[in-house]
Amino acid sequence: MTATAAWLNGEPVAGLAYSRGLHYGDGVFRTLLKYSSQLFDFERQYQKIGTDAAALGLSPPPAATLHAEAETLSAGRERCVIKILLLRSGADRGYRPRTTACDRLLLRYPLNDDPPEYWSQGIEAFRCKLSLSAQPALAGIKHLSRLEQVLASREWRETAQEGILCDEQGAPVGGTRSNLFWVDSGVLHTPDLERCGVKGMMRDKILACADALGLPLRVGPWPWASLASAAEAFVTNSLIGIWPLRVLDETHWTAPGPVTRRLMDALGHPRKGE
Amino acid sequence: MTATAAWLNGEPVAGLAYSRGLHYGDGVFRTLLKYSSQLFDFERQYQKIGTDAAALGLSPPPAATLHAEAETLSAGRERCVIKILLLRSGADRGYRPRTTACDRLLLRYPLNDDPPEYWSQGIEAFRCKLSLSAQPALAGIKHLSRLEQVLASREWRETAQEGILCDEQGAPVGGTRSNLFWVDSGVLHTPDLERCGVKGMMRDKILACADALGLPLRVGPWPWASLASAAEAFVTNSLIGIWPLRVLDETHWTAPGPVTRRLMDALGHPRKGE
Repeated sequence: MTATAAWLNGEPVAGLAYSRGLHYGDGVFRTLLKYSSQLFDFERQYQKIGTDAAALGLSPPPAATLHAEAETLSAGRERCVIKILLLRSGADRGYRPRTTACDRLLLRYPLNDDPPEYWSQGIEAFRCKLSLSAQPALAGIKHLSRLEQVLASREWRETAQEGILCDEQGAPVGGTRSNLFWVDSGVLHTPDLERCGVKGMMRDKILACADALGLPLRVGPWPWASLASAAEAFVTNSLIGIWPLRVLDETHWTAPGPVTRRLMDALGHPRKGE
Repeated sequence: MTATAAWLNGEPVAGLAYSRGLHYGDGVFRTLLKYSSQLFDFERQYQKIGTDAAALGLSPPPAATLHAEAETLSAGRERCVIKILLLRSGADRGYRPRTTACDRLLLRYPLNDDPPEYWSQGIEAFRCKLSLSAQPALAGIKHLSRLEQVLASREWRETAQEGILCDEQGAPVGGTRSNLFWVDSGVLHTPDLERCGVKGMMRDKILACADALGLPLRVGPWPWASLASAAEAFVTNSLIGIWPLRVLDETHWTAPGPVTRRLMDALGHPRKGE
């Protein structure tokens, strides 16, 4: 009767052992960049995680709480990554959620030291064999049930920096850890993510940027051919900003293309490969 | 610079804070019944979790290790639930798995004190509005990315004991926490789970039982009408064994039906509502 109620590798464990985030993926997250001793885009990230939380029936903590903890956790660091997770509270077994309350988990990670060429000359990507499943009730949400991204990442090629995922109809959705844009017939295209995929904070910023620059833009479902025959293409996330695509399987581009360059300049993301 | 690298609700946290199980749902689990001071079906459960682990590229620990820990964790308890999770090892950020090694997390929970009538007179179920997405690469696997089950469980009706999930084509897949069988035209039916759903240990036992009893059986994709017009129906999992269905929306049955009763008798599951 002295047995502890949870063991990790044979040792008693507390903390997150009962978390619904761990057991069911019942939570949401966002990844924040700290660079040049500055935490970027906190307000936008808070708005995104709040929208996602609401979609799962979770009540996020106040912005001030998360901001203060992110600042304290990253204090004294010139650059790092802060990941914020909101995990539905409750330690009971069973899928049914009993509360909208959530626990907040903040973690600090080192920032990857990516080569400057990824920004100045573009990256290599490949099309993943795995197709993303369609779940409109979860599409766009940055939630913790991310096993499809793990499976896709098992296909990784050593020479590549990103894998591009399609839906079951073969339409491009995005990178395993990024959103995807391309320029076709002079128009900026991005998938609408109504049936699968994740709506990143940086995707919103790019959409706003394109609007401010007066770039023609279409958000919708697009066939693979539109991407494969594009004049230029790039991926985005909150850490990298924009990475132009130089290679996507058989397609080769001179990267960055002129539209990508305009967006990179207008975006003002701190990481530019300098 | 004294900040700890992970905080839970404002306090430093260790243990599972960096687990890929928590961050990505990158792991598998099984739920074991201890009843009358006996741990049930360990070998079958180990075989199932091992198959699931292999599908994700995970190397499970030896059966003897898990069995010894399950026994110790449940020692002195007449009845309880032991949940075993295998979580891919590694604390790095990023979807790409770097190892096949996994951490084992075992937890003890109280066993629900379900009313005897659930076995002797059947339960009430309803059809969930949420459709399960189709992902053949994950179908059948009892993995930790279970947010669809959480969403479905948010539809819960107070009078019901289970929700039945369909795929996007409207074909029945299973309960939120159970597998589903029915008798149509004298033949036992169950969904094949090739595109979604979870293959429970008890499902395997029922299939073996039906075979031993010489019951005609068909495993495949079936339309909703086959279930709704069935002569009898039941759900199964490792804790309950078999619960006959008494109500499914507009369909009412006298439960348990004769085939269900034969299977309940042959199964020899310790929980019979006595």
